Amino acid sequence: MLVAAPAHADALIDNVNGLTLTKDGKVERFTGLVIDKDGRVAKLLDRGDKRPDRGLDFRYDGKGRVLMPGLIDAHGHVMELGFKAMSLDLTAAKSLDEAKAMLAAYVKANPDRPWIIGAGWNQEQWGLGRFPTAADIDAIVPNKPVWLVRVDGHAGWANSVAMKAAGITAATRSPAGGRIEKTADGQPAGVFVDAARKLIEKVVPAPQPRERDIALSKAQAILLGFGITGIDDMGTSVEDWNVFRRAGDANVLKVRIVSYALGLEPALSIAGAGPTPWLYDDRLRMVGIKLYADGALGSRGAWLKQPYADAPKESGLGFMDDAKIRNLMVRAAMDHFQVAVHAIGDRANDQVLSAIEEVAPSYPDNRRWRIEHAQIVDPADIPRFGKHGIVASMQPTHETSDRLMAEARLGPNRLAGAYAWESIRRTGAHLAFGSDTPVESPNPFPGMAAAITREGPDGQPFGGWQPQERVSREVALAGYTTEAAYAGQAEDRIGMLQPGYRADFVIVDTDPLESTPQQLRATKVLETWIGGQRAYVAK
Amino acid sequence: MLVAAPAHADALIDNVNGLTLTKDGKVERFTGLVIDKDGRVAKLLDRGDKRPDRGLDFRYDGKGRVLMPGLIDAHGHVMELGFKAMSLDLTAAKSLDEAKAMLAAYVKANPDRPWIIGAGWNQEQWGLGRFPTAADIDAIVPNKPVWLVRVDGHAGWANSVAMKAAGITAATRSPAGGRIEKTADGQPAGVFVDAARKLIEKVVPAPQPRERDIALSKAQAILLGFGITGIDDMGTSVEDWNVFRRAGDANVLKVRIVSYALGLEPALSIAGAGPTPWLYDDRLRMVGIKLYADGALGSRGAWLKQPYADAPKESGLGFMDDAKIRNLMVRAAMDHFQVAVHAIGDRANDQVLSAIEEVAPSYPDNRRWRIEHAQIVDPADIPRFGKHGIVASMQPTHETSDRLMAEARLGPNRLAGAYAWESIRRTGAHLAFGSDTPVESPNPFPGMAAAITREGPDGQPFGGWQPQERVSREVALAGYTTEAAYAGQAEDRIGMLQPGYRADFVIVDTDPLESTPQQLRATKVLETWIGGQRAYVAK
Repeated sequence: MLVAAPAHADALIDNVNGLTLTKDGKVERFTGLVIDKDGRVAKLLDRGDKRPDRGLDFRYDGKGRVLMPGLIDAHGHVMELGFKAMSLDLTAAKSLDEAKAMLAAYVKANPDRPWIIGAGWNQEQWGLGRFPTAADIDAIVPNKPVWLVRVDGHAGWANSVAMKAAGITAATRSPAGGRIEKTADGQPAGVFVDAARKLIEKVVPAPQPRERDIALSKAQAILLGFGITGIDDMGTSVEDWNVFRRAGDANVLKVRIVSYALGLEPALSIAGAGPTPWLYDDRLRMVGIKLYADGALGSRGAWLKQPYADAPKESGLGFMDDAKIRNLMVRAAMDHFQVAVHAIGDRANDQVLSAIEEVAPSYPDNRRWRIEHAQIVDPADIPRFGKHGIVASMQPTHETSDRLMAEARLGPNRLAGAYAWESIRRTGAHLAFGSDTPVESPNPFPGMAAAITREGPDGQPFGGWQPQERVSREVALAGYTTEAAYAGQAEDRIGMLQPGYRADFVIVDTDPLESTPQQLRATKVLETWIGGQRAYVAK
Repeated sequence: MLVAAPAHADALIDNVNGLTLTKDGKVERFTGLVIDKDGRVAKLLDRGDKRPDRGLDFRYDGKGRVLMPGLIDAHGHVMELGFKAMSLDLTAAKSLDEAKAMLAAYVKANPDRPWIIGAGWNQEQWGLGRFPTAADIDAIVPNKPVWLVRVDGHAGWANSVAMKAAGITAATRSPAGGRIEKTADGQPAGVFVDAARKLIEKVVPAPQPRERDIALSKAQAILLGFGITGIDDMGTSVEDWNVFRRAGDANVLKVRIVSYALGLEPALSIAGAGPTPWLYDDRLRMVGIKLYADGALGSRGAWLKQPYADAPKESGLGFMDDAKIRNLMVRAAMDHFQVAVHAIGDRANDQVLSAIEEVAPSYPDNRRWRIEHAQIVDPADIPRFGKHGIVASMQPTHETSDRLMAEARLGPNRLAGAYAWESIRRTGAHLAFGSDTPVESPNPFPGMAAAITREGPDGQPFGGWQPQERVSREVALAGYTTEAAYAGQAEDRIGMLQPGYRADFVIVDTDPLESTPQQLRATKVLETWIGGQRAYVAK
């Protein structure tokens, strides 16, 4: 059925159930797609349109399957996704023996890894009545250091080699805010709680260059498997950038990465006096900087206007004072760097909105000030998103994953501005969707399903949580295509299938505009094409 | 006469007095050069050869002028060359008034510079009978900080704004090893000697990205003006690399840069698990790392086997112990990074030779271990250069500039292995030449003249200093072309004009193989071409 596509060719993708959004936001249907030698869309063909019969190097029969634009994740962490994929995942272990078996298999499969790093264990599910111990790991891995982080991130489990590498002995004291678990005879038992984790983590070596390259490769494979053809990398370090460039130089950078530097310094070092040009045939560009106004809701780091409902003495913490955030925004804007600010709590969102309101008039051209997450917003502040061309970069699955936690943190009376996609969109703000991978799966289809239902994978709560914030299917699709492209200043080349645009598309088993939410959530990506090249085929 | 060359064309460069070295080290003469659309040499034409009469996009009449391969500087510091060119050069000032006038002109010409940085003043030539003062500068530049380093680097001269920025007051104490010059009433006078320089230098801001980009542009302009089409950058920082890449991305990187990272860390960060590929049509590649075994002769930092003749209690200092240098070499070699080690003193050269002898057998393929400078070598150690494929990367003008200083430092009985180009070459070592710019001018023609005469620009000493170390004209030319290319692992693409090689050439007013040394030294570069594109034309 399939013939390998030559590197550059005029190609016809025919007999598809094609759909795309258009420049005026409408849905366009088509049945054929002509791609030019540069990997751009040359023409969309409708059922009755004549197919080119000459000059074609490649012809592909879609057999009536659904073809849609490649998905764009407006907020992810590419390298972290790769590193997570490389480490041992113990979330499925239902007993200590299962965890040990998974560890043994991982060590066998990764013989070159100098340290064994993993996460996800939860001894509460194991019926042990105790923490696991270093000796439990030593029985499996006696000869290289192992460090396994608990599912909640609040504790780590080391083996004896790791403890030795860190110089941990019976004499080592627990630091303030942390605890070293001890055996009956006073020896370090292997588990390090909270601040004590640092005792081990400080000796875990930074990844080697080869490991970084592998991490990017794994991240790309995961993204391609979910139909992601572009992603906004939210906090690129110099190291991360060097990995992206190595992949580009070696012609193995497939997924298009729009990079937001992890603060001003790496942006100035890497991109210099302004955003980089598009590199590697529109595969990579550093376009702006990422800033953090506050922390996260789960750890009560989100900065709230009123105290936490479940911790009345806490209201989170702003990471920057007003002057600092404005100074950074101005410094970035001076050199045309786009600014994307993480803001979770309503106080943080208020701060960022105020900063934009003060700074934006000095840069009257469209600077696309981005607020990342915009998770908890005071309803009184929502209209402010509609001015100054703000982009609200939001993550639908955060809502379905976190709603119960959000209810606990905020109480029943402060939910009206929580994950308020539709209200924010109606202000005229641009609404881009993403996953925050690896915090959530980068799979955009559960995200689209969440966006249109506000129901979780279990269908709960029936009818949707705060259902007034559901968005239409078209808006959900735009959030992962045209609006995500707009957020990353790439709407002139990706996000839709139109003549002159990069031929980034996916072939899927479900029509996202005509399926049930359950079908949409379970959408299987059959093929992912980038720049007219097939980059992924489902097995 | 000249028609602008189109970007990519088949071109004929005709009617030239062409010369190049060949793969077997011979001189080849030609009168015409055909260049293909990729900017590579397609064919050399002799007088009687038929010229192509069709398919040419561009034809250039050389009017009988000399055409030779582009010169390659095997050892330079690209960004430092640019920064030096951007700063105020006071070496020509013969009075305080002249210095002030030069300062005023510089400030006027550089209104955007936040700090005014300069060097080269020498109050001994000014008949002042005193150091200059902050007030002297304040009269010219009252409103922005100024910092001017003395010709010997041992003192700096600040204005009041600079002192204020550094928090210097009458109460500031001179640090150990340094002195703050004071006025009669105890105020800081403006000059900071030795260790006191740091008090000001710590507040001089790092260059802005735009300044870095300008520095690279200036460095390229200087190099092109001297006919340099390729340079080995000896100690590239991550910042430097980012500047090179920005230029490459913006298509303004003209000179080919072979980069040796400033140690292992930036190599691993940038290039990852091995040298980068050639980037930007062979304009940039990170191929290895630069290490330092010792310091310099002038400051008695060079590491000698016997004490300095003019400082009997000193013999310099090695920067790394034997284990460290070997470990770094092995770590680099594991990932196929080439290693270039700075070694000036005979003890340092001995150390590096020993390290190569220990490490090289584990990497039997040709690793081209480079010794940079190889300046003072124990004659007993010279034969060791002939093994393991060592490249001696030497700078002819260091000999002519430093011979009197070397005589003072070493005394009359230790000069036999000083700047011993011919002796080292005869061992079978590869001999590459460079300038160490900006320490010396990057102009390769005085270098070639020094190489064949061992006489300075003044013709002294007549007959040459240690004249047995003169090299032939062909060896001198090879040092700046084929052997410099070999040193940087680029001999398969640059360094000679042969079919398939990049069409990097210069048109000069002197035949380097048939001119007097004086003529050779004064050679004027009329045009510099890189990759078949004219990159410089003399005004």
